[in-house]
Amino acid sequence: MASEVVNRDHHVVIVGGGFDGLATAQGLGNAPGIRVTLVDRRNHHLFQPLLYQVATAVLSPGEVAQPIRSILRKHRRTTVLLGEVRAVDPAGRTVTLTGGGELAYDTLVIATGATHSYFGHPEWAKFAPGLKTLDDARRIRRSVLQAFEDAERALSEEERRRCLTFAIIGGGPTGVEMAGAIAGLARQALVGEFRNIRPEEARVLLIEAGPRILAPFPETLSSYAERALARLGVTVMTGRPVENIDADGVTAAGEVISAATVIWGAGVQASPAGRWLGVETDRAGRVRVEPDLAVEGLAHVYVLGDASLLAGEDRRPLPGLAQVAQQQGEYLGRALRGQILRAETPPPFKFRNRGNLAVIGRKAAVVQWDSVQLKGFPAFAFWAVAHVYLLVGFQNRLIVSLRWLWAYLTKRRGSRIIPESSS
Amino acid sequence: MASEVVNRDHHVVIVGGGFDGLATAQGLGNAPGIRVTLVDRRNHHLFQPLLYQVATAVLSPGEVAQPIRSILRKHRRTTVLLGEVRAVDPAGRTVTLTGGGELAYDTLVIATGATHSYFGHPEWAKFAPGLKTLDDARRIRRSVLQAFEDAERALSEEERRRCLTFAIIGGGPTGVEMAGAIAGLARQALVGEFRNIRPEEARVLLIEAGPRILAPFPETLSSYAERALARLGVTVMTGRPVENIDADGVTAAGEVISAATVIWGAGVQASPAGRWLGVETDRAGRVRVEPDLAVEGLAHVYVLGDASLLAGEDRRPLPGLAQVAQQQGEYLGRALRGQILRAETPPPFKFRNRGNLAVIGRKAAVVQWDSVQLKGFPAFAFWAVAHVYLLVGFQNRLIVSLRWLWAYLTKRRGSRIIPESSS
Repeated sequence: MASEVVNRDHHVVIVGGGFDGLATAQGLGNAPGIRVTLVDRRNHHLFQPLLYQVATAVLSPGEVAQPIRSILRKHRRTTVLLGEVRAVDPAGRTVTLTGGGELAYDTLVIATGATHSYFGHPEWAKFAPGLKTLDDARRIRRSVLQAFEDAERALSEEERRRCLTFAIIGGGPTGVEMAGAIAGLARQALVGEFRNIRPEEARVLLIEAGPRILAPFPETLSSYAERALARLGVTVMTGRPVENIDADGVTAAGEVISAATVIWGAGVQASPAGRWLGVETDRAGRVRVEPDLAVEGLAHVYVLGDASLLAGEDRRPLPGLAQVAQQQGEYLGRALRGQILRAETPPPFKFRNRGNLAVIGRKAAVVQWDSVQLKGFPAFAFWAVAHVYLLVGFQNRLIVSLRWLWAYLTKRRGSRIIPESSS
Repeated sequence: MASEVVNRDHHVVIVGGGFDGLATAQGLGNAPGIRVTLVDRRNHHLFQPLLYQVATAVLSPGEVAQPIRSILRKHRRTTVLLGEVRAVDPAGRTVTLTGGGELAYDTLVIATGATHSYFGHPEWAKFAPGLKTLDDARRIRRSVLQAFEDAERALSEEERRRCLTFAIIGGGPTGVEMAGAIAGLARQALVGEFRNIRPEEARVLLIEAGPRILAPFPETLSSYAERALARLGVTVMTGRPVENIDADGVTAAGEVISAATVIWGAGVQASPAGRWLGVETDRAGRVRVEPDLAVEGLAHVYVLGDASLLAGEDRRPLPGLAQVAQQQGEYLGRALRGQILRAETPPPFKFRNRGNLAVIGRKAAVVQWDSVQLKGFPAFAFWAVAHVYLLVGFQNRLIVSLRWLWAYLTKRRGSRIIPESSS
């Protein structure tokens, strides 16, 4: 790029504009002597905690995303590039982009997150989309809404029943949120709009291999969540490992379930950072990092967020949560700044647990923060306020608040367009 | 469908949920003795007059569209089907849908609108998308925003210039609106967000074959629009028929213009209604109808809106405008009701011109209504209020008003996400 030749500032290249990459860029700020290039293959930062609401027609895609270059507009020393990384050369300190262009770095930060993992069954991806990107959310929304349309036109009772069966795999927060939101769509938002079917008769199944849903939460909250889901009309099926997924539906613990819509919320796999760097990873593809987030044995390379593996104070790996990514980004921005400008040695990264939340549906959620446990409406209200507050962009905050207020009062949904294109 | 066998009510099948089809269904209402089936290949009614704002990142797709079955929810005798018509049999009075299903009708209403026409050059469609559907708008938005991203990464000055050249073909209202909105994006909304380019240096060309833009308006308003566009930074090129469009750009009146983004706003072609019915059409594919919108020589079949050809009081064909389609729908709903329930003969359809509007950009528009002419800010304000009022859905009205207020105050845009999928 044009400025490459003359500029002698320390160049930090950040790959990925999620919570971790963005916080790193913001932490580095506008410090003289440092210039930053942030590369992402999407033009937007995505607020993943609300993605399930896009998939279930509550919010529009643009309301949970913000252009990265717009967020970093005031950072005059930061260049944002829309592009995909093809290769990294840690020895020559360069990053090569797909379609041409090479970036020489002094420090490299990899914040590329994670994607779905189908436990060795990549062929399931076609039938059971996961929920990581806006395109995933659009695809799920399309298939959920289309299922009701197909049911209205179905020529046999059997086909109608298949269209109105929704199977969600995985009883973690994503699976619970999706199941609750689809049940709400069927039992409230769509009621009265069809003439040949009753959408409230849809079957929503939450299929979990382990003995209980929301395993990271205390048992009392798990069983509350099960009861709350049952009230919303979700059938919770625990202890049912999935054995097969195909065009007809799901096979779990030997039972064949005919379902037009199957959604994957079970496993994740870290991005190809390990492959780019030529370093070893754990089974989930995560790169092992030091307490300062540097990659062992590689100079000037840092990996953080879902792409990295670091043990917490309890010696167990830190979970793949937005708050971990966010805190690591804030830490790394500050740490690199001190290191580059003042040659300071940073203290090790320390994760501060800000609490676990999962929303189940209208008026129902669970919150756990140290010894504090909330459930029901108080947890739901806390969740809603926290998420509006955390959204990026004033306009999005206002519009999301309005949509929620409207949805809460009318029980209807504002974003129910089925795009024609097949994505 | 299930109710087919037992129901002896008069069955009206409406194909298309645009302004015309929807107004027909609403006019038929809930009258006992009539049941209605509305078929559309999209699940939403689209407010086309604001589609250019989706294409230029002001509004989100969902904000100019509303699910048809949601609009007609209270019409208990109306069934909405998401489906595509494969064939019509006027003798046997049936409509066959793609993917199975047949509808027997007593009265058939075809309101399938129009699509782009490339004047015998269908190969141009690939390089120069038109603006008729939400998918078109998404595609154009994607290519406009991507052009700025590609310019930021361009490796040569020539390539940068090509990326920053936007050619809009056709100086009608759509072309004028698109050109003004893209110029506003470049000169205001994106300013300060790039490091290697200055988006305000983008060239926006409006290419028109005829001697002036906005030909249906009086000459004074045309020349005002030209001046207003020039102030916004648009280069208006009249008297330049387009001779070729390919991956490199446009050739117009012998001049080769290298442009990464070409947008088609020139010609339209009616939908395949004529082919379905086996009747003759004019060159633009429109079906000739009687003053009561019935197809000549075919019993119980009506065509209206952009798919139809009917002369107005001045003996010239009525133009393909939303207000014509809307008024014809309202007329036909009422007329069919009287005819079916009370065997009334309807009076001929009479178009009442409600005025012509075209918006040019921030604070600039033209309005013509009989002898009344408005331009500048008053026309802009009138346009904005009229369009919010005409939008379907309270939530959309509120959100569009908020987005406009925000865009007007900050000069920024709220819907700038580039989707990954290639549509």
